[in-house]
Amino acid sequence: MKKTKVVVIGGGSSYTPELLEGIINNYKSLQITEVWLVDIPEGKEKLSIIEKLANRMIKKANCPIKIIATLDRRDAIKDATYIITQIRVGQLAMRRNDEYISIKHGVIGQETTGAGGFMKALRTIPVLLDICNDIDELAPSAWLLNFTNPAGIVTEAIIKHTNVKVVGLCNNPINFYKKFADTYNVDVRDVSINFVGINHLTWITDLYIKGRSRIDDILSGKSDSYEAKNIPSFGWDTKFLKSLGAIPCGYHKYYYQQNRILQDQVKEYENKETRADQVQKVEKELFELYRDQELKEKPKALEQRGGAYYSEAAINLIKSIHLDTKELHTLNVKNNGAISCLPDDACIEVNCVVEKHQITPLQIGEVKPEIRGLLQNVKAYEELTVKAAVTGSYGTAIQALTIHPLISSADVAMRIFEEMLLVNRPYLHKFELKEGI
Amino acid sequence: MKKTKVVVIGGGSSYTPELLEGIINNYKSLQITEVWLVDIPEGKEKLSIIEKLANRMIKKANCPIKIIATLDRRDAIKDATYIITQIRVGQLAMRRNDEYISIKHGVIGQETTGAGGFMKALRTIPVLLDICNDIDELAPSAWLLNFTNPAGIVTEAIIKHTNVKVVGLCNNPINFYKKFADTYNVDVRDVSINFVGINHLTWITDLYIKGRSRIDDILSGKSDSYEAKNIPSFGWDTKFLKSLGAIPCGYHKYYYQQNRILQDQVKEYENKETRADQVQKVEKELFELYRDQELKEKPKALEQRGGAYYSEAAINLIKSIHLDTKELHTLNVKNNGAISCLPDDACIEVNCVVEKHQITPLQIGEVKPEIRGLLQNVKAYEELTVKAAVTGSYGTAIQALTIHPLISSADVAMRIFEEMLLVNRPYLHKFELKEGI
Amino acid sequence: MKKTKVVVIGGGSSYTPELLEGIINNYKSLQITEVWLVDIPEGKEKLSIIEKLANRMIKKANCPIKIIATLDRRDAIKDATYIITQIRVGQLAMRRNDEYISIKHGVIGQETTGAGGFMKALRTIPVLLDICNDIDELAPSAWLLNFTNPAGIVTEAIIKHTNVKVVGLCNNPINFYKKFADTYNVDVRDVSINFVGINHLTWITDLYIKGRSRIDDILSGKSDSYEAKNIPSFGWDTKFLKSLGAIPCGYHKYYYQQNRILQDQVKEYENKETRADQVQKVEKELFELYRDQELKEKPKALEQRGGAYYSEAAINLIKSIHLDTKELHTLNVKNNGAISCLPDDACIEVNCVVEKHQITPLQIGEVKPEIRGLLQNVKAYEELTVKAAVTGSYGTAIQALTIHPLISSADVAMRIFEEMLLVNRPYLHKFELKEGI
Amino acid sequence: MKKTKVVVIGGGSSYTPELLEGIINNYKSLQITEVWLVDIPEGKEKLSIIEKLANRMIKKANCPIKIIATLDRRDAIKDATYIITQIRVGQLAMRRNDEYISIKHGVIGQETTGAGGFMKALRTIPVLLDICNDIDELAPSAWLLNFTNPAGIVTEAIIKHTNVKVVGLCNNPINFYKKFADTYNVDVRDVSINFVGINHLTWITDLYIKGRSRIDDILSGKSDSYEAKNIPSFGWDTKFLKSLGAIPCGYHKYYYQQNRILQDQVKEYENKETRADQVQKVEKELFELYRDQELKEKPKALEQRGGAYYSEAAINLIKSIHLDTKELHTLNVKNNGAISCLPDDACIEVNCVVEKHQITPLQIGEVKPEIRGLLQNVKAYEELTVKAAVTGSYGTAIQALTIHPLISSADVAMRIFEEMLLVNRPYLHKFELKEGI
Repeated sequence: MKKTKVVVIGGGSSYTPELLEGIINNYKSLQITEVWLVDIPEGKEKLSIIEKLANRMIKKANCPIKIIATLDRRDAIKDATYIITQIRVGQLAMRRNDEYISIKHGVIGQETTGAGGFMKALRTIPVLLDICNDIDELAPSAWLLNFTNPAGIVTEAIIKHTNVKVVGLCNNPINFYKKFADTYNVDVRDVSINFVGINHLTWITDLYIKGRSRIDDILSGKSDSYEAKNIPSFGWDTKFLKSLGAIPCGYHKYYYQQNRILQDQVKEYENKETRADQVQKVEKELFELYRDQELKEKPKALEQRGGAYYSEAAINLIKSIHLDTKELHTLNVKNNGAISCLPDDACIEVNCVVEKHQITPLQIGEVKPEIRGLLQNVKAYEELTVKAAVTGSYGTAIQALTIHPLISSADVAMRIFEEMLLVNRPYLHKFELKEGI
Repeated sequence: MKKTKVVVIGGGSSYTPELLEGIINNYKSLQITEVWLVDIPEGKEKLSIIEKLANRMIKKANCPIKIIATLDRRDAIKDATYIITQIRVGQLAMRRNDEYISIKHGVIGQETTGAGGFMKALRTIPVLLDICNDIDELAPSAWLLNFTNPAGIVTEAIIKHTNVKVVGLCNNPINFYKKFADTYNVDVRDVSINFVGINHLTWITDLYIKGRSRIDDILSGKSDSYEAKNIPSFGWDTKFLKSLGAIPCGYHKYYYQQNRILQDQVKEYENKETRADQVQKVEKELFELYRDQELKEKPKALEQRGGAYYSEAAINLIKSIHLDTKELHTLNVKNNGAISCLPDDACIEVNCVVEKHQITPLQIGEVKPEIRGLLQNVKAYEELTVKAAVTGSYGTAIQALTIHPLISSADVAMRIFEEMLLVNRPYLHKFELKEGI
Repeated sequence: MKKTKVVVIGGGSSYTPELLEGIINNYKSLQITEVWLVDIPEGKEKLSIIEKLANRMIKKANCPIKIIATLDRRDAIKDATYIITQIRVGQLAMRRNDEYISIKHGVIGQETTGAGGFMKALRTIPVLLDICNDIDELAPSAWLLNFTNPAGIVTEAIIKHTNVKVVGLCNNPINFYKKFADTYNVDVRDVSINFVGINHLTWITDLYIKGRSRIDDILSGKSDSYEAKNIPSFGWDTKFLKSLGAIPCGYHKYYYQQNRILQDQVKEYENKETRADQVQKVEKELFELYRDQELKEKPKALEQRGGAYYSEAAINLIKSIHLDTKELHTLNVKNNGAISCLPDDACIEVNCVVEKHQITPLQIGEVKPEIRGLLQNVKAYEELTVKAAVTGSYGTAIQALTIHPLISSADVAMRIFEEMLLVNRPYLHKFELKEGI
Repeated sequence: MKKTKVVVIGGGSSYTPELLEGIINNYKSLQITEVWLVDIPEGKEKLSIIEKLANRMIKKANCPIKIIATLDRRDAIKDATYIITQIRVGQLAMRRNDEYISIKHGVIGQETTGAGGFMKALRTIPVLLDICNDIDELAPSAWLLNFTNPAGIVTEAIIKHTNVKVVGLCNNPINFYKKFADTYNVDVRDVSINFVGINHLTWITDLYIKGRSRIDDILSGKSDSYEAKNIPSFGWDTKFLKSLGAIPCGYHKYYYQQNRILQDQVKEYENKETRADQVQKVEKELFELYRDQELKEKPKALEQRGGAYYSEAAINLIKSIHLDTKELHTLNVKNNGAISCLPDDACIEVNCVVEKHQITPLQIGEVKPEIRGLLQNVKAYEELTVKAAVTGSYGTAIQALTIHPLISSADVAMRIFEEMLLVNRPYLHKFELKEGI
């Protein structure tokens, strides 16, 4: 039998059981033979917990999949078929810093959006590029499925600076499909969604159920759109929604409802209960569960963690590639002109046709100014963020933050960055060398 | 049961039995309830022959499809679900003129390429735009499947000047899929072809069998590409093919092997045996067959006519739309930026995802100069041809012909056009009004 | 002698004496024969004061120029050679409202930038389009020099919706030339400035004195850039400036130093001393001066008003057109691809070659992301603003405001717009008709 | 006094006396102190003749300019202010081959257009790139004025593959200005011409005399356009010209009147009297004249050579750069988006503003399809030609020739190239190494 080797970098993550469940449930069609779980020394204990749980799950399912847990990344990558990256450089402690420093300076503090996402990108991109070097050398024909946040920015860095066959994946799109299938009581296959945008900033410009447009139901407030559990929800003013003419994603609230969100965040900050604090708690509880020798499947509690349908999105994608199904998925890929108002080498999140050998975005063309203004601004920020991460340029970093729509002034951008830089020293080697700009 | 009404404009065509066979064979999934065959008074006799044959075929297949033959186009179009156009304005007599006048002036004479295709476009576009007016009024939600040649130019005119949901269709792409499936002994689903270009001028930039690139087999001459039966074939020099780095389609011979083809055409011209002469003969024989009361299915001989898999392409497309399959088809659609070096409103022939409500091209992006030079030149010619047909401008017409790569000089363009204009008077009302330029 | 007729729409403006001085000083080369001053009934008194002053100035200079003051706009426009528009719809009272309502809702309140400029555009565009209708009918070959603010947005509306030969003019660029000529003690002709951007948002990407780049002098703080007197100045952090790699214009402070400016504005608001209040006072004093029968030239005090070198810019431009000098001016014109990341039909402010028959921007090409992000965002806002003014769409208006970088949230945008709408009723006829969105 | 050093590479050319005349006549404003004439050993004798003539001219004019003739190119280039390249790699013997081989295979044989120009580009580009290496090292701030043909293609190679400040120059545009100034009896400054295109393929889309459009005079045949003496002239059909809506340049005849020109060339070929034969004769006669010790100025006969106003164009350009005049010149520069339908890094020939530090094209934007089709095709050919010259790829070379509109078929392209390759061995080192493709 032919070897099909799946490598999970960041295998000690609390999300891994979800992924394993998917691999097990699709054993028949995918015939995955080996799953390698890789982590760093700091994650050794968690990795070991996950490894044991994985083996219990495999055993219960009676599935001949080999689980290998290792700290040797290169050994894992060698001859891999699919590589999944779901790492968190600096772990939750650094995420907490991202949030706290941002809010302290009066701007939104969020894992992927704004100053928080910026800092996470700076920590993460160099590590991902190192991983890609290994892939290029040891598994050049492998597909890399990047889940690591900020997924769009990280994937753009990989597209621009490596030759790895990469695709960025987020659980946001699949949740929209699930939600609308549920609303209209149809199969997911009967839902068509026209997405325009970039990761965590996609607009739905039309929505069809069995070929019939239903977007007006949402815009007029007759039915609901998908709301991620990890983002506060205040509902949308229908006058605003109708005039936008598109359904925003959850992350749009950080822009369109900036004031209200910031108000809430300031309270969380004062109470020391930001999202990072909450997640730290959830994580701890999850690993308590995972330790339980009697647990032999993904626990229900994991669904609270925020990554709903994450595994399903990943497994569906692997299936499409593996079986060359030529099906549609909503993915983060190189623009290449699909959205004509963004640079050709930008990473965008749009509908793509997945084939074994290539993933191709569908043509979108012109974008109306209601969407274009914000989209181009955030993409320019992302472009500068990738450049700052790769070059370690202080100047590029402060320019990136300054043009971000959630940061009001250059001086705020500079103060935030300088404080973040100090705390993140261990993760930002490039910047250390160039301090004086 | 819901009515599904298919209208075939040019229903008296010798191709119709092939289409009927497809409709009958797919009755189970498509549930087409009515097929309307429309023609003009001059085609009344042929229409009647086809109508009778159709009824015999239906009867034999025991299929509850209603056949309606009519000369009342508006009656037919009303509330149609799918409309197929396969007309030949001026019939084969005018095609013969196109070929003879071209060759007489020393240039390639061909149904769709060069001066011949130009004149056919001028005759055809006004009629198709009239049909589209009817559709807009009487069946605004119908899909129009245009097979009428030159399919790319005609479809571009419809895209630019009407609101009809149109898609242009050619049997060339499906023949490539069939050919490569046959060569590699796989199912057609296992063949992936990257097409770049416009109707009758598409390059294959890569070819995959089960996800593995096999284009080099063709470029090196190890295996053959598809050769249409109605275009002479001299084979390709492998030095040329390798340096092109792409597989040309049959119609590329008119450009890359212009001299040899022209030499042959001059002989055919002298012997009065051009392609139009041959087709006239075949057509006559086919209708002899169709008259036979014992014939109750598509006769084998039809396959010689040149439209191999024409029906299969059409029926597959209708299936994808009707059942909202989101599958890939190679179609003529609005560019909208998919090929970034062509105008946004140009018609291109590329891979598309077909949904019930929309047909979307896959993004192609930049095209290399080996392909770009010829492609942009011919597209500019097509743009001017559409404009000439719509405005009846003598000046636009001679500029269109002058920049066509197969026409060597402006004076030749002018002489050809003036002679064609004279012969085509009955079909070119717009030009009549504006004679003096 | 050939008639050369200059028409000043908004002739009762306090700026007019400056313009008259220019016309008088350049009488020899321009041979302007008639100056028509047009105003609306509400401005009758001011117009009369200006008319008398104008006649005293002409008389003193002993210049055979005929001054005609009129309320009949169409009479004035007829057969004009040059038309200058410098109107303020709703006068200073409405400007004051723009500032106060903005600041009250926590956002920058400014004549041309942000919510204030937005409301001014909505009041002004319909009036300018009416004027252009008259020009199209009565003086189709006249050049329209638009000074009316927000000059970029207003000019874009004229470019998109009329056929008038328009160019938008601002005194910002000429002040940079003057400033750098002064700094380096050279003639203005020895200064070359590469401008990129749009009106009131232009970056200087390089600066040359006699062919030698001197931008680093400014970026490093060694010498100063131009600071408009009507915008507060806090200086620039040189770390920020160096990393931007371009010299910002005065209006960039509203973005890059938003927080500090807003702080100051809130104080001015509380003290009822915003810019509008100051200007009202200055205006009053100026007209006191203008009434003085002994005043026979432009008074010094006018230079405090904010429009330094305004007349020189206008007269230089008229000279270049009139004498077909093919010289460089920095002007607001149709983009047409000059800045490739902005729409072709956008209005941009860049270096142009001025000929008698056409004004052509110099090619700029790609813009770096540090500049691009903000530029594209503000241009999308402007595009929506023009659309809102022309259509009277409530939805387009709130989308315009929402994507403006100085407005933090959609709800703020909506509240500001609704309050402004109420106050501006008399000037927004289109919106009145469509109130319910 | 500051040194101003002009270097003429190909100083032994028969054109040099014209250039010297210009330098002498403008001594007052330009203050050129040294003129270096460089040539290769094979040109030693001619160089010496020119050197002596130069010194006689200088002496007669009583001008303190130092003339240095040398075979040491690097010595000449060192610290140069302006470098002019006017070389002919392979000399007239190779040009003769280019013409003869082309015509023999039934295609136009011409110095810069078609197969002849292609071969000249292949010989010339490697030499120019070597020269640019020297400039980069020894005179990085020098301006390179490239006159070497095919000037557009050669300049594109330099733009793409070096950092040298290059501008390509042709005498075609200046002749149009002179011709129209003459026709309308005005100063050259009163003529405005809108050029669109690339070297030797520029269309005039409008023509103004003192700001008034006069293009219709030419299009209707009322007055003549400029006709270069070295290209046959048959006049233009006014129906064709009006419908083109633009004035073609002389080289357009090779496309629009291909048949007639080819007919003439075949006769010249048979009589061994092609253009190369004629030029060889003229050259011989010129050098006879130059040897004459009594000759102390540019002889009248030189004007027959084909380069009318060549010197004036060059000297005017040097003047504009040297004196930072910011005037308009029609030059070959990097496109950078000025003509939006051509690649950004293509070389185009359009109106530019010349400053001491930069030469910037005026924005052109969209080009109508009548022009676009041919323009894009020829530019793609040029792009491939540059690539073939730089890489020595046989495959790229035959693709370049195949898509050229003047070469009818791929087999003809291959036969021509193979024969040319054989004859040009000494000049095509890159191709020698890679023979087997």
